[in-house]
Formats: sequence, C-alpha cells, structure tokens
Amino acid sequence: MINVAVVGASGYTGVELLRILHCHPEVAVTCVTSEQSAGKRISDLFPSLRGRCDLVLENLEPVRIAERAELIFTALPHKAAMEVVPTFLKLKKKVVDLSADYRLHDAAEYGKWYEPHMNPELLGQAVYGLPEIRRAKIAKAQLVANPGCYPTSITLGLAPLLKKGLIDVSTIIADAKSGVSGAGRSAKVDNLYCEVNDGFKAYGVGGVHRHIPEIEQELSELAGKPVVISFTPHLVPMDRGILSTTYATLLKKMTAADLVKLYTDFYKGEGFVRVLPEGQFPSTAYVRGSNFCDIGLGLDQRTGRVIVVSAIDNLTKGASGQAVQNMNIVCGFPENLGLEGLGLFP
Amino acid sequence: MINVAVVGASGYTGVELLRILHCHPEVAVTCVTSEQSAGKRISDLFPSLRGRCDLVLENLEPVRIAERAELIFTALPHKAAMEVVPTFLKLKKKVVDLSADYRLHDAAEYGKWYEPHMNPELLGQAVYGLPEIRRAKIAKAQLVANPGCYPTSITLGLAPLLKKGLIDVSTIIADAKSGVSGAGRSAKVDNLYCEVNDGFKAYGVGGVHRHIPEIEQELSELAGKPVVISFTPHLVPMDRGILSTTYATLLKKMTAADLVKLYTDFYKGEGFVRVLPEGQFPSTAYVRGSNFCDIGLGLDQRTGRVIVVSAIDNLTKGASGQAVQNMNIVCGFPENLGLEGLGLFP
Amino acid sequence: MINVAVVGASGYTGVELLRILHCHPEVAVTCVTSEQSAGKRISDLFPSLRGRCDLVLENLEPVRIAERAELIFTALPHKAAMEVVPTFLKLKKKVVDLSADYRLHDAAEYGKWYEPHMNPELLGQAVYGLPEIRRAKIAKAQLVANPGCYPTSITLGLAPLLKKGLIDVSTIIADAKSGVSGAGRSAKVDNLYCEVNDGFKAYGVGGVHRHIPEIEQELSELAGKPVVISFTPHLVPMDRGILSTTYATLLKKMTAADLVKLYTDFYKGEGFVRVLPEGQFPSTAYVRGSNFCDIGLGLDQRTGRVIVVSAIDNLTKGASGQAVQNMNIVCGFPENLGLEGLGLFP
Amino acid sequence: MINVAVVGASGYTGVELLRILHCHPEVAVTCVTSEQSAGKRISDLFPSLRGRCDLVLENLEPVRIAERAELIFTALPHKAAMEVVPTFLKLKKKVVDLSADYRLHDAAEYGKWYEPHMNPELLGQAVYGLPEIRRAKIAKAQLVANPGCYPTSITLGLAPLLKKGLIDVSTIIADAKSGVSGAGRSAKVDNLYCEVNDGFKAYGVGGVHRHIPEIEQELSELAGKPVVISFTPHLVPMDRGILSTTYATLLKKMTAADLVKLYTDFYKGEGFVRVLPEGQFPSTAYVRGSNFCDIGLGLDQRTGRVIVVSAIDNLTKGASGQAVQNMNIVCGFPENLGLEGLGLFP
Repeated sequence: MINVAVVGASGYTGVELLRILHCHPEVAVTCVTSEQSAGKRISDLFPSLRGRCDLVLENLEPVRIAERAELIFTALPHKAAMEVVPTFLKLKKKVVDLSADYRLHDAAEYGKWYEPHMNPELLGQAVYGLPEIRRAKIAKAQLVANPGCYPTSITLGLAPLLKKGLIDVSTIIADAKSGVSGAGRSAKVDNLYCEVNDGFKAYGVGGVHRHIPEIEQELSELAGKPVVISFTPHLVPMDRGILSTTYATLLKKMTAADLVKLYTDFYKGEGFVRVLPEGQFPSTAYVRGSNFCDIGLGLDQRTGRVIVVSAIDNLTKGASGQAVQNMNIVCGFPENLGLEGLGLFP
Repeated sequence: MINVAVVGASGYTGVELLRILHCHPEVAVTCVTSEQSAGKRISDLFPSLRGRCDLVLENLEPVRIAERAELIFTALPHKAAMEVVPTFLKLKKKVVDLSADYRLHDAAEYGKWYEPHMNPELLGQAVYGLPEIRRAKIAKAQLVANPGCYPTSITLGLAPLLKKGLIDVSTIIADAKSGVSGAGRSAKVDNLYCEVNDGFKAYGVGGVHRHIPEIEQELSELAGKPVVISFTPHLVPMDRGILSTTYATLLKKMTAADLVKLYTDFYKGEGFVRVLPEGQFPSTAYVRGSNFCDIGLGLDQRTGRVIVVSAIDNLTKGASGQAVQNMNIVCGFPENLGLEGLGLFP
Repeated sequence: MINVAVVGASGYTGVELLRILHCHPEVAVTCVTSEQSAGKRISDLFPSLRGRCDLVLENLEPVRIAERAELIFTALPHKAAMEVVPTFLKLKKKVVDLSADYRLHDAAEYGKWYEPHMNPELLGQAVYGLPEIRRAKIAKAQLVANPGCYPTSITLGLAPLLKKGLIDVSTIIADAKSGVSGAGRSAKVDNLYCEVNDGFKAYGVGGVHRHIPEIEQELSELAGKPVVISFTPHLVPMDRGILSTTYATLLKKMTAADLVKLYTDFYKGEGFVRVLPEGQFPSTAYVRGSNFCDIGLGLDQRTGRVIVVSAIDNLTKGASGQAVQNMNIVCGFPENLGLEGLGLFP
Repeated sequence: MINVAVVGASGYTGVELLRILHCHPEVAVTCVTSEQSAGKRISDLFPSLRGRCDLVLENLEPVRIAERAELIFTALPHKAAMEVVPTFLKLKKKVVDLSADYRLHDAAEYGKWYEPHMNPELLGQAVYGLPEIRRAKIAKAQLVANPGCYPTSITLGLAPLLKKGLIDVSTIIADAKSGVSGAGRSAKVDNLYCEVNDGFKAYGVGGVHRHIPEIEQELSELAGKPVVISFTPHLVPMDRGILSTTYATLLKKMTAADLVKLYTDFYKGEGFVRVLPEGQFPSTAYVRGSNFCDIGLGLDQRTGRVIVVSAIDNLTKGASGQAVQNMNIVCGFPENLGLEGLGLFP
C-alpha cells in the first residue's frame, strides 16, 4: 500500500486518475491539487467522484505534498510540470509525469517545439513510459515520462514493423483522430458542444503538432535510424478515444496473415495490446474507459502499403491508465492491478 | 467463489453484466447463452470483452446450464424468462431475473399489460429486488425480480416522501428521459443512429408504458395506499442514463433544506444512493457506468410542489449493476463487491 | 426590398438570422455588429457563411447603423438591448428585439426577474411577437418583442386549451428540454462538449428560470385569469431543439380525437403549426432548422390529464425564424417568405 | 417549370432531394416511389416533410412514372437503378441517377467491383456528373451519373494538382471520414445509435471499398495517366458530412500560398467550391445541409507532401444537392437555383 498525490487534478486526466485509483487495492490518494480550484472539493468539480473521493483541492506546494506521498502523478500542462518535478525528485519521490516535459531526450528539440527547457539535465534520467517497449527501464526509473496519447497509439501500431525493418520509413503517414477530451477542460469557444457536435475537422495540418518530435523519437529508436513522418490530427465528436490510421510501404511482399502473425508474436504476453484477427479492425468504442490498445492490420495489395489501425482511450491507455500501469511497474505491483476494467460498451 | 451463468447475453444488459462480473472477485462466469448467436464467441459480438471474456455462446438448455452454475442471471425479454426460470428454480438454483416477468405481484395485472402469465404461482415467491427498500427479503430469496430502469429511478426518488406521507399521491407526475440503450440491441429503423442523433422525443405518451404497473405497485406499497401516476418516457440522444423529474404537491410546508435532510436520513448508510446538497441536481453524466442513484431535491414555492430529480445509469443501477447488487445480497457477499467502479467522466 | 441590420450578430441567433435572411428575396443585410469581434468578417466567426455573407462586424453605434437599415434585429443579451432600442425607435426604425427586454408588460415584474428596466415606458408599446396569437397587433407594431424559445413552445402548446377554458390552470406543469445552443456561444466550462455530451440534466429547478414570468403572462392572457405554473428546463445533448411536455388536468371528459380536433381547428390556416394525428408525437429532429412548431396530443385516461408535447427548433421558431416571421408581418411581406426551408433530416 | 419524379424516395438521399426540391422555384415533384413503403405518405416516413410534401409513395412502375415527369431522379441501390433507367431513357426522359450503376465507363470494371452490368451500352452515353469538372458535357446529357460522396470530395480536392501535373500520382493516400447517413437507412445492428455513438472506426480497409474504381477513373482522367490510390473510409459519430484528408508528394517545391493560389484560380467562378485561405481548414460542420465543398491546403515542408482537406455534406454536395445541380444544368436553369441554402450551424 502506498500513498500517492495527484498534482493538477482538475483536468480530465486528473479525474481519470482518481477514477482508476479508487479501485486500485494498493493505493491511497492522500492529496490532490489545483491552482484554480484550491479549497473546493474535487467532487464538486467532478460529481462522479462524490462519496468516494471528496478530497479538498490544495495549492501546489511541493514540499507539503511530498510529505504525504511516495509517488506523485503530475497531471499538469507542459512547463508547469518542470517547475515542480525537480523538487519531488530531490525529496526522493517517484514521479509519473503526464506532461510533455520529460518525453524528449533532446533539450534542443524540446526548445524547438515548446520553449527552453528548465532542467535539461533530467532528460537523460527520465524514462519514456511505454511499458510494452521499455518495461525493464521503467521498473528502475525514478521519473517516468508518460507518453502522449497520439504517440502511444502510433508507436504501438508501428513497433513490430519498424523493429523488423519491414517498411520504408520515408513513407509513413499517420492520420489520427481524437475525441474532444484530448483538448482538455479549459473554457474555449472552439471546444463548446455546439462547435464540435455533428462536425469533423482536421487541425494542426502540415507537420506542426507538438506530438511529432515525440513520435519520431520513438519510431527512430525502434527503426534504428531517423524517421520523419507526416502526421495529421483530427477532432471527432466524441468524448474519448484515439484511432490512428497509419500507412507505410512494405519493403517485401507480405500477406495480411503474415502481418497478424508478426504482431501477435511481437505482443505475446502483453496484457493491454490486443491484435485483432485478419479482416477485423478496431473501434474506439470497444476500448472506452479501458487500458487496451487494439490493433487491426490491413494490406493494400494494389499499392503495396500496409495500413495499421490502432485504437486507444486517450484518457486511459493514452494518459491516466498508462500512468497507473507505469506506477505499477515502478512500485513492483502486478502490472494490470487496478486496470482490469473492461471497456464501457455501449 | 461461485459459478454463474448469463442467459441472454447478447443484449446490452448481457454485456454490461459481463463487464461488471469480470472485476468481481467472487464470481466466475461459466456459461453464456444466446439463441441467435449460439456458436459465436461473446467477444465477437462485443469486442470490448476480447481477451478477457471469450466464452462461446450456447443455446438455452436450462438443465445443461444449471449443471455449471449456482446462480443464473436471466437477461431475456419478458415471456422468454418465464419459460425457463421455473426449471432453474426446480433445480435449486438461485435466479436474478432482469425481465419484467416476476416484478408484478398480481398475475392479472401482468396479463393486462403483457400477456397471460405462465407460472403465476411463482409471483408470490419472487422478491422485487430494490435493495434500498427490501434488502432483508432479498437476502432470503431464491428468485429476485430485478427492477426496471424507470421504476428504479422513480421509486428511489419518491420513497422518502411516500413513506412519510408528505405528498398528495394523486398529484404525482413522473417525466422520465432515457438513453437509447434502453431500447435494446435489435435492428430497428427507429433506433438507427441517424434517426436518434440530435433529436429528442416523447414516446408511450398517455399512460401506456409497461413500466407503469410496476412503478405504481412499488409506490403504493410505500405509501400504504393506491397510487396512480402520470408517466411519460422520452428518448435522449445518448447511450446510457435515465433521469426522472418527478412532481408532486406537498401536503405541508417544507423547505428545500427539510427535503434534503429527509432524504439524507432516509438513505443514511446506503452505499449507492447519493443525496445531493440543496441547490444541486444530478446529471446522468456523473453516474455513467456506475451503480449510483443520484437524487436532487427542488421546491417550487410558488406552486407548493416538490420536484425530485433522480439519475441512474439504466444499464447499471437500472439493470445489470443492480442485478449484481442483488446477487451479492443473495449470496452473502459485501453488497458493493464488484460495484465500486466510479462513473466514467467524461 | 428592405435593408436590415443585425445587431449582436456573433451569437447563435445572429448566425441563424443571417442564414435565413440570405435566402429571403426581399431583404438585404447591410450591417452586422459585435462588440467583441468588431473588425472581423462575420464569416471568419461562422465559416458556414463564407462566400455568401462576408460583412465586416462593426461596433454598435446606433445612429450609424440606423442610417443603413429600415429594420433592426437586436440579437443582444437582455439589458444590452434596452440600451439601444430607444435610439432606433426615435430614428423611426422598426425593431424586432430577440432579447427579453420588452417581453413583459410589467416593469416591476421585469425588475423582479432581471433588473430595473431602463425604459419602462416602451413596454406598453412593444408587441409580444407570437404571430399565431397576436398577428394583427404585430402588423402595426414598431417594436416587436420576439418571444423566448421555451415560452414559444409552451404557449403554442397550451393556447387552444386555455382559450376554451378546458383545463384546471392550477395544475399546469411544463417539463421542457432544450438543445445546447440555447445556452449561447460564450466560453463556459459547463457548455464544453465533454461536459454535455452523453449526459442529461435538469437546471433551474424550482421555479427560478427567467422565462417563467413571460410564460405565465401569455398563459394568463389566454386563460383570462392568472396562471401559475411549474416549469423545469433540462439540457439535451444536441445542438438545436426544444421539446416541452406539458401536463394539465382536464375540466371535462375528452377523447384524444377531441383534442386533435380542437387543435386542428384552432390552428387552421397557420402555416407553421403542425398538429399531429392522434397517437403521433413530435421529435425535435423533424423541425431542425425549420420554423415549424409540431404538436402532439396525449390523454392519460387513468388520471384525467392531458399531455401536450410540442417541439420547435429553439434557434428558428424559438428565435431567429420567428423574428423573420415577425419582420414579414411588420413589413407586409408574405408571412412565410424565406421561411419555407424544411427540417434538415437526418 | 418541370415535373420530376423521385424514384426510391424512402432513403436519406430521397428525403434530402425532397427537402431541396421543396424550395426549388422551377420544379414540381409529382411522384415518389418506394417498394417497401408503397401506399404510405412520404411524410409518414419523414415527418419533417409534413404539410409541405405529403405525396403517397407508389410502386416503381416506370411507364406510369414517366407519364408524369420530364426528369427522373433514381435514388435506388445499385443494380435496382439499371433495371429501370433504360426504360426512362427510351421514353425520352432525362435521368439523374444517384446510384453507382452508370459512373464507371468500363463495364468490366463495374463487373469486378459490383456484378455483371445489365446495360453496358449505356455507359458510354452516361455523363459523370461532377459539374466543376465536366459541366459542358452534363449540359447535353440525357443520363447523368451522379458521383459518389467520397469520390466527390476527393476528386474536387485533387483536381487542380492533377491537372497541372504537380504531384507524384503513385503517392496518393486518401483517408476519408463519413457521417453515418452514408450507410443508408436500413435496419442493421451496426448502424444502431448505441453501436455508433461516441465511437470511431475504419472500415473497408485495404483497398476494397467500391468507390475506389470511381475515384481512380476520375483522377486518372484528370492526370492523363493511370492513378492508383490507397483509400480508407472511416465512420464518424455524426449524421452528415464527409471530410477527406488526402496526401501526395509534390514534384516540385511549392509554398502553401502557391497552393492556395493554384486552387483559387482553378475554382474561380465556381459557386459551390470554397478554397480557404492559407492556414485555414474546413469542418463538415460548416457545410452541413449546404451544397458547398470547402477545401483547405496544407504543406508538410519536412516531408514534401501536400495535404488536401476537403469537406462536403455527403447527402447534399455528395448526393442530392449535386443531383439538383446536375438537373439545373441539364434543364438550363441557373446552376445554383434551389441550392443557395447555407449550412445549418450549429
């Protein structure tokens, strides 16, 4: 049993963490913070928690928080995270950071897409927390950089092909679609119900989305050489879910059955990756609220392209579920503890 | 640890039962049936279950099922249930029936709203499974008649007022709104996405919905005298959830604070009923996927009417969650076992 | 052919006015205003207008606007309207005001629900613009107070019964449900997609919604005596539409066929009210984007109550469509000019 | 003024035709057919039409229909269309066929993707009805093959680039997303509200969708050489709309401004194509119910790829709106007659 804090609990990844942790048998949440809503009960912001998690939100005072927690989830915007994470580390706390601040190995690259990094010396120490790829390193980490939602779906979707060198890495196009919770909980006209409902759009077109360096870093590492991709995110009128449709040209002839076997073998023993049988493709509806990544494999014989379709819940496997999975690894708990909830369907 | 069967597993209450039972530490599901889909895996129908519940659907052969289960959930349409429940009972099995077949005490009333009852002798033996009202009887029952979704929300919403005789029972109007999963999973034009989305309508207007006798039976019992209500159901473009807005004229002057106190006292110790503070009202969004019934209390000073707003997830507290709650009671497990999952928000 | 201005064009009623007026053969929109977005093109705010209405938004300078328009639509929040309407009137302009500022006849009542009225002397001059009830007066008005969305649906729904004195006016309960566009286009967390989607809730419970005095004023006038009602609004996860379910006790025995005949006769010749045949009830989906009010009539024989279900598009018949209908009357155009667009279904 | 018939009026393209034609000043609909619903009023199937279009649905007897119409819209499934179109043509009627039956020039290709063609001799005579590309030929056609929804969005999206030979045609990937109305109005579990809502999925993955030969035929003609593409359709939880995100490698360096200029010039004078300014991208929400195709242009400098994002309403510009546009051309009416309705937003 450990005590944990959720720093930045008033966003959607915050409430998702609390939802999951409520059913985790080895965790007690002792502290939740929010600069904007300090003094209110978390269950006033999120009445779904009422009666089960009624903690009062506190200001973000790292030392006082560290006194009451062995592990801290930082569910803050980028920049806000790197302002407090060093303090937690110095106080010997473990940190699972859900922001982008420690995902890139290269401070210059971070500076290019975000802003100058405040503690670049920690980048080498942070472990990118995609358990299916880097489980052993995570187990020994003090600071886990929890992956972004788009990167999780795309990296898991391409890992087997890249690892085996089966695709032309210059041909990768990832066309990704996200539910609206990915945009966070801030009050903007663009995210109003009437602006989003019954509509579909692209955004960040033309290689400008901040998840690109993170995706390319991971794909390059898997491929063993530099990978540059085209990535276009879209907004789907639904609460949760990311589905990525990724295209690449195969370097040799394969059948769909070959692809399914490749993936099934690669992910053998992985509890949260489900490789679908030939001819079946995922829907975000089947992973809603669960920690699964479902992967379907298509082959366009006419063009020689593989089409990988991968689906996750952006708030669960794409954020808070994966964060708990990382916590489990870091703390030596069974990796699926508290994460066995199946998708809510319908 | 007990073995259970889910008879009629291919509908939405079926998959919801399997979702909940997957995380229940004292239950193993040994058998799932579906006449239409026998031979298929349940996870082919509901890919959300894949990898965790891949049982093959069987035909409904009661004796063979009973061999492998101590308790049977019958998630069948009305009539289909009363064709098999007697066999399960004879074989000394416990049954939680999610159909309407054993909810009414009076076979004539059942005949009037449905069709002639096939085993009226069992009506006296069945216990109406609303734990907050009838827990002790449920504990001793062999056959639990799991309440309908609308009746659950309305009965829990009115129980304190009726029990204390505080309202004029001739003035009760229940205006109820349900998500689309309440209509089941059969292929009808009316339930197509494009027919339902971005629209709102009433149905069963004029006192003709089959949940009426069930609601009136329960309200009458609570009031200690016959209660006749006006009830209008509506269809909301959402997957899950029922919200009932119930109006009645108060027999004496009360404040909103009085009402909140009355309900808080009445439901003290109840783990699944959350009475909201004065001025707060529920949303189905906050109970999505959970077993809670949230109740808010309004007072219209100008007209002397109380307005009770109650919200449940129709598939959880309104069906499968309550069925598991009843199973827990019947089997002597802690009542909240497997039911602690919080609402999925957003 | 007349020139009109739309003052307060950056909200949802503004863009709906522009959508309708674009197809109106007798109107040219010469001026659109928005304090917040002055200097931008209206089509940058609402790209649906692009290429057809690209006017630049101006500041609200009444005199300069009046120079270019014979009739002004004021689509402003309450209070903002009464700050400018007197100027337009003085300049001999006709005004259709979509705010609440001139709907109530009684300044004291306005003060009680809103704030002190700034020009109470105009209240007697303004005509409440519900054409089906008050067409002749509207035709002669300089200032039309365009009705609220809830009041439109409820008043049209009850008018025949009240006019004939067929119901006990102390028993009226209006349970109303609105799409999200009714909440306007301001950036509030409550109206974010993820807060609203897949959820349903009541708000303004207990006789506190500001549309109440307006509804009661109109119902009282129709009944020829004071009417006090219970009114509960709800929020439906859809863009547009209001459906009101209104209950009242009949004073004499009637059949459903009687009711349908009563309504059909009452609304004979009305182009925008469609009384549905016995046993049929409206859906907001069938009036989406149109100026219709669809009315279905139910009878609860068991309780002696009539149930009137009325549906409109809150932005069209509930706001901008009705405003154009009023403009047509005021200007002597055929009443349905520009308003013949049928509902967008699906 | 002409008389027209809508054959196959009981589907979503049928009701959309009737909605548009109701406001068309030069058209009277004299006849509507439906095999399944013959004898019912069309407004019983689609209450949005009530009071304005209450024609009784007839059986499909071509000769009797031809007596009452100068032009026939065939809104039938493929195969059903080619069973009746020859009769209409023999009777000297003009036909706008919304099915796939006359879109492909090559009967063998039709046979490969559909089934053997019943009147291949008509394929040479039919004109593919994409007015922006082939207006002059349409004007002289007796039989117009109205384009599919996906092909319309993709062909308009790529035409300028292909015509100018600016992209490597072997690199085209079209990732397309459609609202649910594209799946038609038949009662299938897959299209139920609860199966679709709050989920997103791919279908027809791997180059198997029947719109592919049509798309490739048109792109090849524009390019002047054979074009083979990868095409993946997806299902979006919304009623209407198609958004296609199309990727291709540029053959020479271009800026985003160059692209916008290229498209603006190419579509100069086109009333229904709106090329967006640099940095802006379309949403299906802004074309809902309108006949526009909105196109946004992105450039991925890092990979040398152009990204064309095009949005239409699948039922309007993607089906019935374009059919009316073709009728206007064929009949010599102004091309935008009856099609000036702006998008319904929100």
